[in-house]
Amino acid sequence: MTDFAKTRSLFQLPQGLVYLDGNSLGALPKAAVARVNSMMRDEWGKMLICGWNSAGWINQPALVGDRIGKLIGAPGGTVVVGDKLSIKVYQALASALEINAGRKVILSDTGNFPSDLYITEGLIKSLDKGHRLKLCEPETVADSLTEDVAVLLLTEVDYKTGRLHDMVSLTRKAHEKGILTIWDLAHSAGALPVDVSAADADFAVGCTYKYLNSGPGGPAFMYLAPRLANQARPALAGWLGHEQPFAFDPEYRPAEGVQRMRIGTPPIIQLAALEASLDIWDMVEMKDVRRKSVELSDLFIRLVEAGCPELKLASPRDSGQRGSQVSFQFEYGYAAMQALIERGLTGDFRAPDIMRFGFTPLYIDAGDVTKAASIIEEVMVNRLWDNAKYFAQSTVT
Amino acid sequence: MTDFAKTRSLFQLPQGLVYLDGNSLGALPKAAVARVNSMMRDEWGKMLICGWNSAGWINQPALVGDRIGKLIGAPGGTVVVGDKLSIKVYQALASALEINAGRKVILSDTGNFPSDLYITEGLIKSLDKGHRLKLCEPETVADSLTEDVAVLLLTEVDYKTGRLHDMVSLTRKAHEKGILTIWDLAHSAGALPVDVSAADADFAVGCTYKYLNSGPGGPAFMYLAPRLANQARPALAGWLGHEQPFAFDPEYRPAEGVQRMRIGTPPIIQLAALEASLDIWDMVEMKDVRRKSVELSDLFIRLVEAGCPELKLASPRDSGQRGSQVSFQFEYGYAAMQALIERGLTGDFRAPDIMRFGFTPLYIDAGDVTKAASIIEEVMVNRLWDNAKYFAQSTVT
Repeated sequence: MTDFAKTRSLFQLPQGLVYLDGNSLGALPKAAVARVNSMMRDEWGKMLICGWNSAGWINQPALVGDRIGKLIGAPGGTVVVGDKLSIKVYQALASALEINAGRKVILSDTGNFPSDLYITEGLIKSLDKGHRLKLCEPETVADSLTEDVAVLLLTEVDYKTGRLHDMVSLTRKAHEKGILTIWDLAHSAGALPVDVSAADADFAVGCTYKYLNSGPGGPAFMYLAPRLANQARPALAGWLGHEQPFAFDPEYRPAEGVQRMRIGTPPIIQLAALEASLDIWDMVEMKDVRRKSVELSDLFIRLVEAGCPELKLASPRDSGQRGSQVSFQFEYGYAAMQALIERGLTGDFRAPDIMRFGFTPLYIDAGDVTKAASIIEEVMVNRLWDNAKYFAQSTVT
Repeated sequence: MTDFAKTRSLFQLPQGLVYLDGNSLGALPKAAVARVNSMMRDEWGKMLICGWNSAGWINQPALVGDRIGKLIGAPGGTVVVGDKLSIKVYQALASALEINAGRKVILSDTGNFPSDLYITEGLIKSLDKGHRLKLCEPETVADSLTEDVAVLLLTEVDYKTGRLHDMVSLTRKAHEKGILTIWDLAHSAGALPVDVSAADADFAVGCTYKYLNSGPGGPAFMYLAPRLANQARPALAGWLGHEQPFAFDPEYRPAEGVQRMRIGTPPIIQLAALEASLDIWDMVEMKDVRRKSVELSDLFIRLVEAGCPELKLASPRDSGQRGSQVSFQFEYGYAAMQALIERGLTGDFRAPDIMRFGFTPLYIDAGDVTKAASIIEEVMVNRLWDNAKYFAQSTVT
């Protein structure tokens, strides 16, 4: 049984703030500061170049990958950490399109991150081989899996609405039609139980700065199914994805399995912060995290709907079809979110009208949810959002 | 006049160690520890998601890019920081090949990093349009600039020998033949004066963990000439390279200029360390760095050649044709380097027989060089390298 009071105590949370945005940037694990400090002073400062061997830096992408693998049902040696999510999407898609070279359609849905679609369009232009991106509605993905589709590229949990795809069923249906699958787990890893092995996913990618609390700009991860491991050619043929990086061989030969998806030197300082967070993840059971996430978000929906009839639920009401976030639609959502932030409740806004709240049981509890709902009610009932200062456009939300 | 005693005092250097490997991993700026600590505690910990605006994280790739730009002769707004060097090489090459779409040859030389060649071969395979990589000897680059060449991809300073290309003259000759140039400055930025504007380079890329002391896995940088800024299509069409990332527009529209080469969220913790190093760079004049680098390396060559006739100089003797490193060839170089490291002199080894020593005037002085030469002489004269324990193969050197 996970001790969530204990895990909460391991995060630095500003006094008086209710932080419902851990789905955008996770909170700071207190131990991360000392961990990074020690990595810098005792490893970089004292070992210098020898740290690659002596401190094991060179193996960090694989070792940390294995730790993340435990959270997503990936066996040891099938996940690597590094780069950014968009780069990992690019690598997965480029490899999958080569494996399924006879087909030209990439299927995704309108609930996917625009960033995944940008990367896809960019790759299609570079390849210039007649590929096309086909977007369907989230509800029609299963019916859109036709035999011209090479790759199904989906984000499991919709970043706007929190709607959760059925990874197991969609992957099975895709495979029945000879389609490879790429699952973006940005809003899944650390948010709910994921089992890429049970789902038989082909590729999975994700980031670590949301529910995995690695800090701003923390690295991404990539899973590659063992059965594809030696078929997938890395489009970004990176030095550290070479079979023998330190042979300085002029010819590229890919390393075994997912290791070939490594590119350059791993971000060791960011990885030290990530490791401090993964130490906390070692103390929890994902089923407990999911149960508490559902409790918190159900409570939040009930309280907000009771107090604020103007807010329209934009997430599935059924918790079984929802990730670990709840969104409400409101025409003046941007201004309302600014009013909430000023009153000590941080969520975020997604254009055109989505107010988004994330639930991270490692450091959020029912008291936070009750307080959040009362702040929202205060802002809505009194129309506190209706103030010119909240209507200025921000660059980042 | 640069005060190198002062700059040296700003680095943490292990007592008793002579570190001639700053060309592989720069030393730790003492202030980086506090800087990173404060970024984590006061920005991530207190501002959480609002740090992207309030602490200015979102603009760091451009602001830090401008600081690096000053070291390589790039005007404001033409350099961005992020990702790894190999990714930046890939982006530059993919864009350049599209601009010069009628030509199929990528010219590089045998002195380039294998990693740059891996990326090139990987991109050629992905594009599958009949491009080919042609390698010449470093001495014959100028004569190999024929009109079938689309892109000249060179590393200015050879990572093995330190041989320095003439960027101005080769870029001019390339342009005369309609060839675009990509300069890899991994061993140039912070090592010697570079002026991408004066050279009229098209693209330049580099890393920050060598002479720029950003720490293991620090980010890369990319320069894009203003005259090409709006022609270069980003193959990796990343979210933060979008004209309006936070519009979450389903259509990709590239940002102005080099900003379009941004991909995902910048590594803010690693960038904090880099900024501490750039504060030191603000105190120095590159011409002073170069003068001292030449003094140190000339002294090193003189002392080592006088004491160790078995070591054959593998670098240009003329300092005008050399970067900030000196290499010697020795059949048992690997074992000899292990013997040196055990005796407090860190350099590194590059297969098959290169012993490499880097000179970083910010924290290395003539006393270090004299001491280094005497350790080398001790090891060579007494054949201390001839010991079974030094012959085991390492994974990283």
